[in-house]
Parts: sequence; structure tokens; C-alpha cells
Amino acid sequence: MTAPEPDSTTHLGDLLKVDQWQALCTYVAQRFHKAPEVMVAVEHGLLGARPFKSSNAIVCAFETILLALPQEQQLGALRAHPTTMGDADFNQMAKQYEQRFGWPFILCQQGPRRLGLSAKAMQANLSRRIHLPLERELHESIQQMARELQCWLDTCLSITPVVGDQVWDWQERLASHTDSTDADILTVTYLTPAHRACAQEIAARMRECGCDEVHIDAVGNVVGLYNGHSPNAPRIMTGSHYDTVRNGGKYDGRLGIFVPLACIAQLHQATRRLSHAIEVVAFAEEEGQRYKATFLGSAALTGEFNEAWLDQADASGISMRQAMLEAGLDISEIPLIKRDPTKYRGFIEVHIEQGPVLAARGLPLGVVTSINGSVRFVGQIQGLASHAGTTPMSQRTDAAVAVAEVILLAEQAACQHPDAVATVGQLQVPNGSINVVPGQCHFSLDVRAPIDAVRDAVIARILAGIESIQTKRGVRISLEQVMQAAAAPSDPDLQQCWENAVTALGLPVFRLPSGAGHDAMKLHTLMPQAMLFVRGEHQGISHNPLESTTSHDMDVAVSATLHLLENL
Amino acid sequence: MTAPEPDSTTHLGDLLKVDQWQALCTYVAQRFHKAPEVMVAVEHGLLGARPFKSSNAIVCAFETILLALPQEQQLGALRAHPTTMGDADFNQMAKQYEQRFGWPFILCQQGPRRLGLSAKAMQANLSRRIHLPLERELHESIQQMARELQCWLDTCLSITPVVGDQVWDWQERLASHTDSTDADILTVTYLTPAHRACAQEIAARMRECGCDEVHIDAVGNVVGLYNGHSPNAPRIMTGSHYDTVRNGGKYDGRLGIFVPLACIAQLHQATRRLSHAIEVVAFAEEEGQRYKATFLGSAALTGEFNEAWLDQADASGISMRQAMLEAGLDISEIPLIKRDPTKYRGFIEVHIEQGPVLAARGLPLGVVTSINGSVRFVGQIQGLASHAGTTPMSQRTDAAVAVAEVILLAEQAACQHPDAVATVGQLQVPNGSINVVPGQCHFSLDVRAPIDAVRDAVIARILAGIESIQTKRGVRISLEQVMQAAAAPSDPDLQQCWENAVTALGLPVFRLPSGAGHDAMKLHTLMPQAMLFVRGEHQGISHNPLESTTSHDMDVAVSATLHLLENL
Repeated sequence: MTAPEPDSTTHLGDLLKVDQWQALCTYVAQRFHKAPEVMVAVEHGLLGARPFKSSNAIVCAFETILLALPQEQQLGALRAHPTTMGDADFNQMAKQYEQRFGWPFILCQQGPRRLGLSAKAMQANLSRRIHLPLERELHESIQQMARELQCWLDTCLSITPVVGDQVWDWQERLASHTDSTDADILTVTYLTPAHRACAQEIAARMRECGCDEVHIDAVGNVVGLYNGHSPNAPRIMTGSHYDTVRNGGKYDGRLGIFVPLACIAQLHQATRRLSHAIEVVAFAEEEGQRYKATFLGSAALTGEFNEAWLDQADASGISMRQAMLEAGLDISEIPLIKRDPTKYRGFIEVHIEQGPVLAARGLPLGVVTSINGSVRFVGQIQGLASHAGTTPMSQRTDAAVAVAEVILLAEQAACQHPDAVATVGQLQVPNGSINVVPGQCHFSLDVRAPIDAVRDAVIARILAGIESIQTKRGVRISLEQVMQAAAAPSDPDLQQCWENAVTALGLPVFRLPSGAGHDAMKLHTLMPQAMLFVRGEHQGISHNPLESTTSHDMDVAVSATLHLLENL
Repeated sequence: MTAPEPDSTTHLGDLLKVDQWQALCTYVAQRFHKAPEVMVAVEHGLLGARPFKSSNAIVCAFETILLALPQEQQLGALRAHPTTMGDADFNQMAKQYEQRFGWPFILCQQGPRRLGLSAKAMQANLSRRIHLPLERELHESIQQMARELQCWLDTCLSITPVVGDQVWDWQERLASHTDSTDADILTVTYLTPAHRACAQEIAARMRECGCDEVHIDAVGNVVGLYNGHSPNAPRIMTGSHYDTVRNGGKYDGRLGIFVPLACIAQLHQATRRLSHAIEVVAFAEEEGQRYKATFLGSAALTGEFNEAWLDQADASGISMRQAMLEAGLDISEIPLIKRDPTKYRGFIEVHIEQGPVLAARGLPLGVVTSINGSVRFVGQIQGLASHAGTTPMSQRTDAAVAVAEVILLAEQAACQHPDAVATVGQLQVPNGSINVVPGQCHFSLDVRAPIDAVRDAVIARILAGIESIQTKRGVRISLEQVMQAAAAPSDPDLQQCWENAVTALGLPVFRLPSGAGHDAMKLHTLMPQAMLFVRGEHQGISHNPLESTTSHDMDVAVSATLHLLENL
């Protein structure tokens, strides 16, 4: 069955010409001719989604349609896909993959930057995915099919995501600086030689992109200013951090520096000035790796630089004060870099999602509603250690059984609220023996929600449950709160600007909270803020070398940011 | 109210004379006059329990009556008790204790050997018990009341547990040898200088007690023989191990050496010979601490000495072969010490319970029905590590949540069978972070039951449950079996001999499985075996310096063992 040809006269503004639409229908028919129900569903779905304002909108519609199918049809779509071929080792494992899942391994071999994947990269992708839970891998396979369509559309429509490729290349270049002796491990911590090289490179990139003023401030932030229409134009601040966690990804933080720089480059090239000056800040420290001074870079701008940080020593005994002196930073100037909020329209931040939500929905962009409030606890359960063989079940005071109830309780409590999360990330029976009933257990608890009241309701529910576990099990459970951060809801106006930008690109507006903390959370104390999330590959994995996105998604992020900057 | 005076003419064989009975009633009335219901219940209960064959039987009846009362009456009994007084620090904490539990701290200040407790020992006891769950501490308080009665009865009836005191002193003396530089830490591992000193001391004790032949065998077991009526009399073997775990207790193993030696001493003193020769073996190694060679001592007697053990190195790189040579042991003779079962009536072993069952029931002795069969696994759960803030609850593959379900599943599965136990003793999220959803979790699983079929039914239930957790949670759970031991049911005839002995002492027969492995489990492969358990103090804690029993309980263990030996 072939979808009816759309009436092109009713689709003014549609990217697709009639022959391109037909080519797309042929592509779909070829992909799914062994799964006729899917073929019909996709063709009708795409027809209904017209007009398309961009190729990203087509891909997004395609993926959304597939994700909405009943699982049986999804499986049919995957089974109908031709097998991806590689070298002998690869093909061998691909066979195991097919045995496990029941459909062939699907991988867009062009890769995220369309440079083609190496045999090693293909093998690594397969090795990782062969172990995924079935539902996860089903989604990942659909994502790869969508990615194949995206690359096909580039050819069909003669599109190249030039700006996205440029941002990609900038990120690659910046990732060549690392604290590690292993060039494949990306670690950039505060004020190391690699960190300082990053600062220099970012400063150079800012100049190259056309910033009017560029400097490195008293804490190592790199600040670039692109003037507005007039010297007194209000400023919009944007940016993110350039430090990384140990063995981290290339995009966490850095994407939020390069996306606005790509916007400035375009404005500069067109010799355009906007009603706002654009201040891009590459924050020197957000991850708190070398020193326990998380958000140091943005804190300095909000006047929250903590003098006590200066006396902290790193693992080699070098104090932060000493490290700053060696980097040529003038500590006495730190108070001077606090920003005056009256001069700013607000702060916007583009960030890779670091989560699986956008990927699971086939969306390249998401609009952040709030940076979640969070509370962290470390907990301890005191039971009675006893002999695993000689203590009847009814006479035990088992700390591990009690912690098991706490873990499930935390899960249930968080599940009561759509956007709340609760995690027991640390868990240990200290010196546990196979033949000893645990007398002690250590654990951590992290609770987050977009609204503080919801976060606190989840915590209250967990605490009440812990109370009854204590009583029922005869254990003592202590919780020490080690962190509390208030939620930072997005400024409604700025959030609306992001939503308008996403709509302008022909993409659906999807709103989500940010579960992770970001520099915007700090700036929130000083000025309005709103964030845009960019989809991460590999189900949004982050703080990991696998962290990735595509140049297409970066391209669309630049377009959205430029739209926001032009329409403030 | 006073209990009616018993008709002494109907109580032939009763330990108590009329005036002693009246003194006992007065004691009870004084203790409980503030809790009249309890007073009545105890007096009537004791009256019904007459005739008493021993003071232990009185104490046992007293404690059993209190333990059977409704909790409200038990609390009344405790509240009526006078406060135990000590030094200022002690009294301060005793006040906190009373605030927490609602009754005064009760401690028999005479201590387990009736030498009086030091201020330090009283303080330590209080410090431990103030943190116990309420029900546990309620039981421990009742035990202390029973212990007070026991010491009072000694005076009233002019009884001294002479033999028990002697065994106590032998144990103390043996515990002076330790591998540790800290004399308060008892560690005796295979063939260390302390271990060899123990062997020498045990050999000397055997000679002193009247053994006819004493020698140290090819693996370091100390063997003492007390001949029977005739040179060809069949033998009964008994004994236990003299090595310890690190920082262990004084009674684990050793009690089973000294109790039969005390019997031999009595026979020897009376120049009595029995129909069976008594062979006491002090096994050199059961705990597998210095080398992974658990049950080495008893295995050598059953012909299961594993030659591969010899090449194992200890933590300092000394091989077992080298250690044996240095100790003057002749490895070539090991095969010769294998026992010929036709010469033996069987093997009996006295052992401290190492569990809370007897203490919770107020019983000094328990007859073992079976040494539990056990299976041990080490397990691993593979989930997907992800960001604790950015991964919605519905998109997690959390290894810790999955392990929580496994832990509760194991508990439920074991609770289906009265004597089965299941324990997750090791539990760890490796390198867990407070803000990362656990991608991995390690755990152990230990399942035991008196009958192999029950043990296997529990395991089957757990494995089935794990299968559904895998499916539901999308995790992979792997279990590797690292140990399997068949149950060793007691020989019915020998078990009956123990039951007769307990009955002869006027104590209730209580049967229980042994959750821990013992040398008897090894001998089981060669000859009939049956064990007797002796109650442990402090809720049966073992593998711990707190492990203890009283000289009264040791005394009664000697009486029971002598009864068995005389009536084989």
C-alpha cells in the first residue's frame, strides 16, 4: 500500500518537494515492506505530520511514530531490517545478538558526525548493546533506524549540518587536553595544565567567533562578550563549564559554551548586532573533582565564592590558593567579578541532557521546567550480627533485610510523584561475611523533585516508612542529611522563549525537569534563568566516555539558541 | 498469696526439702510482691514442676515460666525488680537504660563463674544491652533474673558446680595462648606457636585427667584414650577443635574437649572403667583461618585429608607443608591416622550452641537432630548505571533495587520452613556513588536446612523468584555456587542416649538442628554421630570475644555426657 500523495498546495512552508516526499515514501516502503502494518502506520503518520519545517522534524516524526506502535509491530519493524555487516568477529557477535533479541543488530554506520564508524567502534557498540535489557535495546534499535533516515535525508535533500559539524569539531579539539596520561581518558580538573590549556583554547575560539571582548577572570572563567546594538544594551548571559569529571564525556558543560559561540559566529559573519549583548561564560569549575568546591565558577559570579575553599588541598597536597597563584589568578579580584543582576536580562544554558528521557521519546531538544531540588542523606542501619547458620529467621535483627525494605520504600515513595526520583546509590554491609547475618549496613539516599514541596513529601514518606521498619525489625536506622538544594524553577518568560524557538524549528515542545544540578542553578540566585536540553546518545549516558550526541542535534541546538537570542 | 505447701511425702527424689521449698517461695514472693500476678504464676508453676532432680531444673522451670507469661506480665516482673547499682558512671547509664526500656537494668553481679563482675565488665554489659531491641533485652533481663536465682539456690542448697568451675578454669588457662600480641584477643590458628602451646597443654591435661594414652598425631590433633573394661572394648570417640577464628571466643570447640576430659577425670578418680573405651580428640584445625583447609583435623581421621592443602601458603608465604615440618609433624603418617569405623560405637560432640535458641527458651542443654545441609552462592546483579538525578524511576535498571527484592525473597523463602535459614551476608554496590543509580551489585547467599530436600526447596523458590525479578527489572542476576554440604542427621540411637541423659538431669528435652558445621559433620561420613549443645550467654553470640557460658551450664553438660558414656 502506498500513502496518498499530499496536496502540495496545502503545504506551504513544507521542506519537502513532491518528488522528495515520494522518495521518502519509497524509503519507508523499502524499509518496512516485510512489515506491512508498520509501513502503513509510518506513511500515514508522516503524512499527518506534514508540513515539515526541517529534516529534524521529519526524523522526529518518524521515530515518534515507531515508538508509539504496539511492541509486536515494533518487533516486526526491527525483524524486517537488513542485517548490519562488519568484519568476521563483528558478524559472529551480531549472530549472537540476533539469537538473543530475535532481530538483527541495527547500527547507523555513518556515526554521529557522519565520518563512518571504525570496526572497533562498531564492535564496541555491539558489545555494549548485546547486554542491554530487551526493552532498552528495542528503543536503541529504533533510534538507530531514525538515525539512518536522518543520514538518508541529508543526501536526499542535500542538507549538511554545517554548524553542528563545526561545534562537533570544536568539542573534539578541546577534548585533546586531558589530565590523564592516556589520551583516550578525558579528565580536566580545576587549574591543571590541561585545564589551563582549555581556557586558552576557549579564549582563542571566542575571539575567532567574533567576540568583542575576551578575558580569563579571577577564578579562571573564560568570558567572551559580543556587544549588542548599543553599548548600553542589556546583557543576556549564557554558558556552561569546561571542567570534567574523571574519565568523563566531551559534551557535559562544553556544549553550552560552544553552542552560543556558534550563534555569535553566525551573527558576526552576518555583521549583525542584537538588542542584547551576549556574554558567554565558560565556567572553570563545576564538578568539584580536584577540590570539593562544586560550582566554584558560577558561585564566584553570584558572590558565593567560599574563602574556605582556598585552603583545601588536592590529593597531592597542593592548596587551591597555591594552584590559583601558579595559574596567575589574582585572588583579591574575586569579589569584583560578582555580577550586577540589573544589567542582565537573565541566564540561559544549553546542556546535554545526561539522561534517557529525550532519547526514549525521539526528541532532539527538551525545555527545562525546573532544576530539581534535592536532599542527600547518608544512612546507617544497626542490627545484630549473628551466625547465619544458628540464628533462626525469627530471632534475627538483620541490617541487610532492613536496608532492602528501605530501598524498596524509597522507590515506592518516589513513584508516587511523576517527576520525583529517589536513589540508594551507596550500599554496603561492611566486612560482610557469607555466613554472618549482617549487623550493620551503610547506605545513601538521594531524593529530588522539581518542586521542593514534592521532594519533602517524598522524604516524609520515606522517613515514616523507616520508622515502621525500625519498629518491626528491631534495628536502629540513622540518617544524616549531607546536602540540601532548593529547586530552581525556570523563569516563565525565558522558558517560553525556548519553547518558541523549538516550535519555530518544527519540533514538538517537550518539557522536563533537570535532575542534575547545573551552573544555571547558581545563577538562579541572581537572575532569571532557563535551560535547554540536547538529547544524548546511548540512552543519555553521561559522566562516561560513551557520552555523545550527534552533529545534527548540535546543529538544531544552535538554531534554537539563535532563535532565542534574536527574539528576547 | 502463698502457694500451698507441697506434700513432701509424694515427692520422693525431690532435691528440695520442705524448708528449702519454703525459702524458695519466700524468694519468689520478695522478688515479685509488686507484681502479684507474676508471683502467683511463678509459685504455681514451680509447684507443678516438682519434683526437681537438680537446681538447674528449678532454674530452668523458673525461667520457662517467666518466658511463657504475657508480655505485659513480664514487663511487670521486670519493673518490680530492684535496680542494679554500680559506680557513678554505671548508675548514670543505668538511668538512661531505665528511661529507654521502662524497667531497671538487671544483671547478676556474681558473673558466669561467680567470681563477681568488675566495674568494667558491668559497664560493658550495660553498654551492649542498652542498644538491644526491646524484646531481646526483655529476654536477656529475664535470663539475668534466672541467673540470680541460680546463684541464690547455690547458697540455699549449699551447692557448688565444682566440675563446671574446673572446666571453666581449664578454658581460661588454655585461652592464655594466642597468636595476637594483644592478650585480650584470642586467635589460635593452625600450627602457630600459640597453637602448638595449646596442643602441649591439652596433652598434659589429658594425662592429668587420667587418660591411659596421649599423643599428638600427624596433623596436630591431640588424642587421649581412656581404656574400657577390657583391652578390646569398642571405642566411643568424642572431642572438638582447639583452633579458633580470629578474635574468637574461648568455648567454641574447646568446650567439647574439656567436657569429656572432666568425665574421664571423674571416672579415673573413682577408678571406674566403662564398657567402652573413650577416645578424646582435640582437633587441630576446624576453622580454616590460616589456610583454607576447614575441618582439616577431622578430615584426616576420615581419610579426607586433601594433599593440595600442603602447598597452600599463609599470609606470610609459609606453606602448610613447611609449617607442619617445623612443628615436627610427619606428613607421611597422615594416611595412617584414618580411623577404622568398625572399632567405634560412634562419635559424640559437645559444643556451645553458637546461636540464640536455647537462651531464648531458658534451657541449658539442647539435643541436636541434624547438622544442617548448606549451599552457598556468590551473586552478581548487572543493571545499568545511570545518573540518579536525570533517570526517571520508570527508566532505571537499578541493581540495588533488584538486590533488595532478592534479599526479601530469600527471607520469605526460608520462612516457609521452620528450621530453614537463608542469609544475604555480603552486600555491596561496588564504588557506589550517592548520585549514581547502581549498575552493579555483589551479594552472597547462604541457605541451610536440617534436610537436604528442604534446603533445595528453599533454593528452588529463591531461584524462581530471581527469574521473575530479572524479567521484571531488566537486570541480569548470576549466581555461582561456591559450597554445598549435605545434611548430617544425628544417629537415632546416639541422639536417644543424649535425650536420656538430659531427662536424667530433670531437664526438658529440646531438639534443634545445628545451623553451623562441626567436626561431627566430617565424622558422620565414617560413623554414627550425635551432638549436644550447651547454651551460650549473650543470646548465643559466637566467633566473638563475648562468647560465653556459665560454669553451671558446663557442669550440667559434664553430667549429661557422663550419663551418656555410662549408658552406651
